[in-house]
Amino acid sequence: MYIVILAGGSGTRFWPLSRVALPKQLISITGDRSMLQRTVERVLPLNPKRILIITNHLQAAETERQMEIYDSVLIEVIAEPAARNTAPAIGLAAARIAAHDPSGIMAVLPADHFIKNEKKLRDTLIFAGQSAHKGFLVTLGILPSRPETGYGYIEAAMDSGDEINEKGPFRVERFVEKPPLTEAVRYLEEGNFFWNSGMFIWRADTILEEMKTFMPSLHEKLLQLIPTDAAGEYAASDERIAALYQDIESVSIDYGIMEKSSRVQMVPVEMGWSDVGSWSALPEVIEPDSHGTVCVNAAGHVAVDSSDCLIYADGEMVATVGVHNIVVVSTPDAILVCDRQRCQDVKKVVEQLGAAGLTSYL
Amino acid sequence: MYIVILAGGSGTRFWPLSRVALPKQLISITGDRSMLQRTVERVLPLNPKRILIITNHLQAAETERQMEIYDSVLIEVIAEPAARNTAPAIGLAAARIAAHDPSGIMAVLPADHFIKNEKKLRDTLIFAGQSAHKGFLVTLGILPSRPETGYGYIEAAMDSGDEINEKGPFRVERFVEKPPLTEAVRYLEEGNFFWNSGMFIWRADTILEEMKTFMPSLHEKLLQLIPTDAAGEYAASDERIAALYQDIESVSIDYGIMEKSSRVQMVPVEMGWSDVGSWSALPEVIEPDSHGTVCVNAAGHVAVDSSDCLIYADGEMVATVGVHNIVVVSTPDAILVCDRQRCQDVKKVVEQLGAAGLTSYL
Repeated sequence: MYIVILAGGSGTRFWPLSRVALPKQLISITGDRSMLQRTVERVLPLNPKRILIITNHLQAAETERQMEIYDSVLIEVIAEPAARNTAPAIGLAAARIAAHDPSGIMAVLPADHFIKNEKKLRDTLIFAGQSAHKGFLVTLGILPSRPETGYGYIEAAMDSGDEINEKGPFRVERFVEKPPLTEAVRYLEEGNFFWNSGMFIWRADTILEEMKTFMPSLHEKLLQLIPTDAAGEYAASDERIAALYQDIESVSIDYGIMEKSSRVQMVPVEMGWSDVGSWSALPEVIEPDSHGTVCVNAAGHVAVDSSDCLIYADGEMVATVGVHNIVVVSTPDAILVCDRQRCQDVKKVVEQLGAAGLTSYL
Repeated sequence: MYIVILAGGSGTRFWPLSRVALPKQLISITGDRSMLQRTVERVLPLNPKRILIITNHLQAAETERQMEIYDSVLIEVIAEPAARNTAPAIGLAAARIAAHDPSGIMAVLPADHFIKNEKKLRDTLIFAGQSAHKGFLVTLGILPSRPETGYGYIEAAMDSGDEINEKGPFRVERFVEKPPLTEAVRYLEEGNFFWNSGMFIWRADTILEEMKTFMPSLHEKLLQLIPTDAAGEYAASDERIAALYQDIESVSIDYGIMEKSSRVQMVPVEMGWSDVGSWSALPEVIEPDSHGTVCVNAAGHVAVDSSDCLIYADGEMVATVGVHNIVVVSTPDAILVCDRQRCQDVKKVVEQLGAAGLTSYL
């Protein structure tokens, strides 16, 4: 199995810890390994033939640096010259794999998700790999635990007798964009709706065939990346990729392929998954203390009548007095203090800093 | 005129900026000069004969360091070997002054108060000095602007025709401890109650005479500090002071002398005074922005729907999102996040750190 890790996100919502050159996947929300490193480490027991990390030129150096602790023969970091959403990134990886191993199975994983039960992910990838081997495009659907309005959903075509924890694979009825709350509540009740995890598994030639059908322009450009000489494995030059990317359309794999292909299947999985979308997701990643507070990377925490705070320190002693539901993030050059319900608005801070030309803080 | 600055406070309520060895008077609440330095600078235009700074041995080195920018001939830093409240500290200064200039007038000022109208203080000291010269113990009473329950009050004996902004001096009816709110409201209405500022002016021999009457044991020890030889001005050795202090009683000048002496007068003054008792007093010292927020020592402040916060940074960019009435203090090794109404409880943090043996943060 090949592992393709999509690691090109910008992640302004974790400011000030995340920056343009240090987005969510390259930082350590938990105070130890980065999200990307944890993503790599959770698939290493699968003994992947190769791990391809698709990132961008701003983040490539730090990505390479973080991969130094692993067997470098195994990992290839590919810097996209421009951000073009997931379809081109996945197509690039598929073309590289297909160049020497057309029927190779590739699992596509985001670099910035948290998974509590990592063995469950590996088992699910192996299970779903059987469908992939048969020529299906398999997507992993997360069993929803709440009527979340921030995620897309996958409606599975389940028989009336199917249990929602049935292993699948299921045929996919449709993909649903982020729903309003009433819809999300209904999805949870109906039981055949799953969170769209952005994790996929398929054969390289399968996805390339579907790209040829549904995204012919992209497919044509990808063909130019497959080397024609025997020695050319992974030999496409940066210049060639750059030229190719210039006029590639920015399209997601969901919109470009998954919503159109008839070869799509879904495998449900329950594994303590979180996309860690903002600071408010910290308690999904790190167990809060008895007062509901999460305090990461601090020398210690003295709480006087405080609860439900989310604290990411820079090694300092942290004291809280009479505060509740406050997010505090300390870095060497910037501090964030945020209402816990307002974590989505952290991106407004980044916008204001950008508008003010304060680029050193971006 | 001699200036005696009482600079021995511990100041745990400004943690984490203030520490055992760096109490309130030695830090800069406003981001530039320390409270002590500002206290010195506001009396320099009076051309004092000498400035005596009474501190303790933990803080003496930093105190000396901060005084290096001034004419060192003018300033003498005296480290008390033990904290014994204000009466012994003032007695020590009076004895030193009386040794060579018995009728010298000394103004006693706390090192950690903020005064907006500094010229008004100087004018008031000169005016009150006239009463001091005649042998009165003059205390400065601050015109109260609110029914503050955190201060002691002085009830002035005013004639029915006296205006509260009359210059005085007034005879003092009594000193009142921190009152309950209903009393404080009544004081404000009655108009002859003033905040006890802890600022005094008198002749060295007057205060020593009153000490002889009301604190004979202290006076007897102070006599030993007055050198008997002509060359011995300020010659008392550290060992002699230490021995003297060992069995001195810890008493305030208010309790020991002012509440008992019949030579007490009060001069009222309105000068934008604040004792800067906790972080919540920051807006009394630094003008808040249009959203009621004070942000000191930051590279900048990005506010998204935030107001009425008190921020003391360590040079960082500070961003606030959806927070109100929050105090945030950042230092290299400790961070405080506190409800603005709970600033008095910051001392509980210091207590907990002490109880846990985390002395490096004290």
